[in-house]
Amino acid sequence: MINETYRQMLKGKSVIRELSEYAAARGREIGYGNVFDYSLGNPSVPCPREYTDALIKMLKEEDPMAIHGYSPSLGIESVRKAVADSLNRRFHMDYEAGHIFMACGAAGALAHAFRCVTKPGDEILVFAPYFPEYGPYINQTGAVLKAVPADTENFQINFHALEEVMNEKVAAVLINTPNNPSGAVYSTRTIQKLADFLRAKQNEYGHDIFLISDEPYREIVFQGADSPYVSKFYDNSVSCYSFSKSLSLPGERIGYVAVNPRCTDADIFAVMCGQISRGIGHNCPPSSVQLGVARVLDRTSDVSVYETNRNLLFDALTSLGFQVVKPGGTFYIFPRALERDANAFCMKAKNYDLILVPSDNFGVSGYFRMAYCIDTEKVKRSIPVFERFVREEYPAAGVR
Amino acid sequence: MINETYRQMLKGKSVIRELSEYAAARGREIGYGNVFDYSLGNPSVPCPREYTDALIKMLKEEDPMAIHGYSPSLGIESVRKAVADSLNRRFHMDYEAGHIFMACGAAGALAHAFRCVTKPGDEILVFAPYFPEYGPYINQTGAVLKAVPADTENFQINFHALEEVMNEKVAAVLINTPNNPSGAVYSTRTIQKLADFLRAKQNEYGHDIFLISDEPYREIVFQGADSPYVSKFYDNSVSCYSFSKSLSLPGERIGYVAVNPRCTDADIFAVMCGQISRGIGHNCPPSSVQLGVARVLDRTSDVSVYETNRNLLFDALTSLGFQVVKPGGTFYIFPRALERDANAFCMKAKNYDLILVPSDNFGVSGYFRMAYCIDTEKVKRSIPVFERFVREEYPAAGVR
Repeated sequence: MINETYRQMLKGKSVIRELSEYAAARGREIGYGNVFDYSLGNPSVPCPREYTDALIKMLKEEDPMAIHGYSPSLGIESVRKAVADSLNRRFHMDYEAGHIFMACGAAGALAHAFRCVTKPGDEILVFAPYFPEYGPYINQTGAVLKAVPADTENFQINFHALEEVMNEKVAAVLINTPNNPSGAVYSTRTIQKLADFLRAKQNEYGHDIFLISDEPYREIVFQGADSPYVSKFYDNSVSCYSFSKSLSLPGERIGYVAVNPRCTDADIFAVMCGQISRGIGHNCPPSSVQLGVARVLDRTSDVSVYETNRNLLFDALTSLGFQVVKPGGTFYIFPRALERDANAFCMKAKNYDLILVPSDNFGVSGYFRMAYCIDTEKVKRSIPVFERFVREEYPAAGVR
Repeated sequence: MINETYRQMLKGKSVIRELSEYAAARGREIGYGNVFDYSLGNPSVPCPREYTDALIKMLKEEDPMAIHGYSPSLGIESVRKAVADSLNRRFHMDYEAGHIFMACGAAGALAHAFRCVTKPGDEILVFAPYFPEYGPYINQTGAVLKAVPADTENFQINFHALEEVMNEKVAAVLINTPNNPSGAVYSTRTIQKLADFLRAKQNEYGHDIFLISDEPYREIVFQGADSPYVSKFYDNSVSCYSFSKSLSLPGERIGYVAVNPRCTDADIFAVMCGQISRGIGHNCPPSSVQLGVARVLDRTSDVSVYETNRNLLFDALTSLGFQVVKPGGTFYIFPRALERDANAFCMKAKNYDLILVPSDNFGVSGYFRMAYCIDTEKVKRSIPVFERFVREEYPAAGVR
């Protein structure tokens, strides 16, 4: 009587997790310093000192009944207000507390947003390459994930492919910018064009199409990147945010849904998230964590290391002859593999203790992802290893 | 395109929440000290000092990357081991870390347990009176809640009614002991009889029937109560626990599923919970909170105030002529109302600033719930008010 659907899911192991487990095991063998583990998107810099200090101060001085007491299911009112104010200040929006639903990380935020705007059988479009967990996130709602093939030129949006995949059953379009795994940041031009396209389709079909914007990397954008705030361009939009990456708090599971004040039913969207919570056991993120992040809303960890690593890797990879789109943000880079079969490519790299994730899981073939949220010193040491790997395994590759 | 199912749910407001909001508003009018607010089951004593101290020490001394880093989706291994050890020590079980799934409070634990052992259309039996949120918790899984009428003599189990409701579609039976709202604690005899009954039905139907034990009040048991550990009596059982009440951390959303090592598929149950997490946006409870509770597992808040309050109220209510089963634990008492219509009764009480919750929401009519997790001083002051209320509104009630 154990549920067969979930039992079957046990067979589909996460490739990323397997690689990360391999890297850990290999590290125990040869020293983790000698394993160039580019598998996991786990922040490599600590949370800002201000966060720790704020928590300690709160625990020392404030009433434990307030710190650890029930949060309303939509989130603590003062925290929702602080989030709205911060977004308004930074992105010139006009959110009120009522548009903010505090959620357990981006996964929690998306779980609510998907259920709010779809019914079973509806389609949600995602753009390849995409975070593999979108599959189970969407499938368990009863909606259906449909992938739009990639724009492999720039990892922006392939509008030709989008036009082909779009149909009346599409209730929502999910974007993730800055993007995991490509590191691409959707430009103002891309977002504007997408918004125009969706407005036209709403008119054509006579129903809403929601734009769900998954934004955990919003604060990790490199110099020169054009990184517009998505909800400014399209009314029927919601931002799903997580503090995991910007504040280096991935284990604290804290984020939110920010509902565009101009979307359909904007006044009840967050309240409906509260209803959805009741059935999925979510309730609300921990009170102490809500109160903690509210005190450091406009801060980030020192994320400059990611840009340093991006520069090192982009230069090294291009000079080794890799085709690679220069990431505008995140801590990922997504080069084309040196053979058609990315799995085979990554298996060979593993022999050099280079842990790379093949792209097939992200909905495109022939690429690999490197999560460069690791020490810069290790990135530097990995470059000669990469050179040796390419020279020995792919002697025909065009080293510039 | 906003989901209609959830929109409809907006109409069904929680009676408990409405009463609590009324009490807060009334408090702003006449001073909250003058409102005898027995509506909400919110712990009235702070968390143990040791919890605060452990958190501060951890934040001061340990690596923020470890404190706030990703937890594995089943929970932090050392925490799972510590929970298993604590349960083994206290209840002479033989859990291993692999049987423990860390969850976001009892709501999170139940959300996973229900999905693990049912498929859409299966029935889950609950015993009246029961916590009203079991409705949405179960319905959103696709399973169906079926209520077994109450044993109004003792609020144990009405086995005659259970036999009538039981059928082949029942995949799980949910119990909650010590019980919200009755305060009753299921005796060894009750649990033993239930286990025998379920084993016989498993044989008769040829399939598993899981016993899901919702145990957030396990640590709040009064002198003399017979409070057995449920999983000792039945192999196909899981304990769903929350630290909300025992450690006064309701806002921290921390609990677990403890899978009976002797149940069907005991070795994959927790791993399946991890799969379920992926679709409901749960992932795992915050790392810092997991690490925090692991340091105070065998402690509780000073819950003795609840027994003091129980004694005061039980004596007062019985001497006023109420029929009431003496609670063996929790911080609830569930007397019979002085008229058939509990709603009318509670409305009249409201005029005396006595905030009582009518029982209809709990699946029985004619009773009311008092959550006596309030200051003892206020309980004492409420007694003469109760006397006046009964004398004036129900002059025929048999005051002893």
